[in-house]
Amino acid sequence: MSAMINGQLAQSLSVMDRALAYGDGIFRTFIVQKGAPLHWELQYQKLAHDAASIGIKCPPSETIYADIQHLFGDDTGVVKIIVSRGEGGRGYSIPTEQNPTRIVFKFSIPSYPESYTREGVVVHCCRLRLGQQPLLAGIKHLNRLENVLASQERTGLNFQEGLMLDQHGHVIEGTMSNLFARYQNRLLTPDLSQCGVAGVTRDQIISLAHKIDLEPIVKHIAYNDLFDADEVILCNSVIGVWQVIGLDQHQWSNQGLATKLKAILN
Amino acid sequence: MSAMINGQLAQSLSVMDRALAYGDGIFRTFIVQKGAPLHWELQYQKLAHDAASIGIKCPPSETIYADIQHLFGDDTGVVKIIVSRGEGGRGYSIPTEQNPTRIVFKFSIPSYPESYTREGVVVHCCRLRLGQQPLLAGIKHLNRLENVLASQERTGLNFQEGLMLDQHGHVIEGTMSNLFARYQNRLLTPDLSQCGVAGVTRDQIISLAHKIDLEPIVKHIAYNDLFDADEVILCNSVIGVWQVIGLDQHQWSNQGLATKLKAILN
Repeated sequence: MSAMINGQLAQSLSVMDRALAYGDGIFRTFIVQKGAPLHWELQYQKLAHDAASIGIKCPPSETIYADIQHLFGDDTGVVKIIVSRGEGGRGYSIPTEQNPTRIVFKFSIPSYPESYTREGVVVHCCRLRLGQQPLLAGIKHLNRLENVLASQERTGLNFQEGLMLDQHGHVIEGTMSNLFARYQNRLLTPDLSQCGVAGVTRDQIISLAHKIDLEPIVKHIAYNDLFDADEVILCNSVIGVWQVIGLDQHQWSNQGLATKLKAILN
Repeated sequence: MSAMINGQLAQSLSVMDRALAYGDGIFRTFIVQKGAPLHWELQYQKLAHDAASIGIKCPPSETIYADIQHLFGDDTGVVKIIVSRGEGGRGYSIPTEQNPTRIVFKFSIPSYPESYTREGVVVHCCRLRLGQQPLLAGIKHLNRLENVLASQERTGLNFQEGLMLDQHGHVIEGTMSNLFARYQNRLLTPDLSQCGVAGVTRDQIISLAHKIDLEPIVKHIAYNDLFDADEVILCNSVIGVWQVIGLDQHQWSNQGLATKLKAILN
């Protein structure tokens, strides 16, 4: 791991940063391929959108891009970008003059078994139900204790991802991924207006699904209705697309959607 | 401000700490009076309880107490203690071996106008409604974006605190304080089983209310029912107790509860 804070190589962050105190910031994680941040424009758009949603001024695209170039050179890896509201005093009130902190991390590509991509993954349903907060829904902010606790449920179990529902039992997402379910030529993905994180890969699939003759539909999906789907996939900007071959006691025999989606994404 | 991280004076924290990445930790803020952390046993109990609630092993009481002594000597001020899950890799999963990070901050006492304590404060109702997450309710964790956004609503307005309701319109708390409402000899405070932070001063008032012939009752309070209260107060471990003299368009003429509560707390 290496990191830059506000353009300087650094291993540590001011203890007065509001990211530490309150999770007062947003982030994005995706692949850099031989020095090129994949889908940079879309990733930056999301970063800037999410920052604006909570009143943080996002540093310019060129500034963050330069940090990535400096850290990665021609390397391949995972970049994580955090933009926080910056340093502040004690107390929730936002400083009159904001100086956002940008942190750019370089990580190696995670070593998931090849079978996850080739054959698919087995998923369980988390006991934790996501809380609903429309003002923060969809945003990839730094308040991620729900994801941490939901991930913890998988400890010692042989599942590759956990499915999270909301308090009404609607399917929302995986702990680190978005979900699509195909019903014939309809490609459903959960409504994220009350909770969840709207990933760049999810947006891309919504935009591009027509290329493989699927109609993307954003709507509430009840947990039990998921078992009627012909196929289910998970996606994010690091793993790409994983076919779901099992969910709790249910197994899917239809497969091929993940491969088709990967083809239109590349 | 000065701070110690894991027993060493420090201004900065590892960028790999999970407090930064996910708000994966808990905290407590209270007064140190001439070197003595007020109600230390209660504060430590809460810290350890909250840490355990999300699976973090809290450092021993003596260890944190020694940090406070080192930082404060005989000084008076505000101490803030953060315990995070410690450093981790990228990804939500909890490291097999946890090394929690403890951060102890020394701040000066905030300079609220004397009138807030002597006469009382005026409060508005925030537009933000708290999300409900029973697994995190009551815990003073580091995922505090709701409090940040709710505090922001007060910018430029002449209110001293913002009242937060849940999604059903129940009164929960102030952005930085707990609330009690007196109806004759009944002293109601909101049920925090779905959201909110349970402060040490709230616990103390519940324990000690009988000393001033009040019966403490924890229950749901609808926003409109608050106007029927004889008196309303706000409390936390830094401000003590503030009488609420106005809420939105409503004003209270009965006063004196804050003074009585301060007397039994000391």
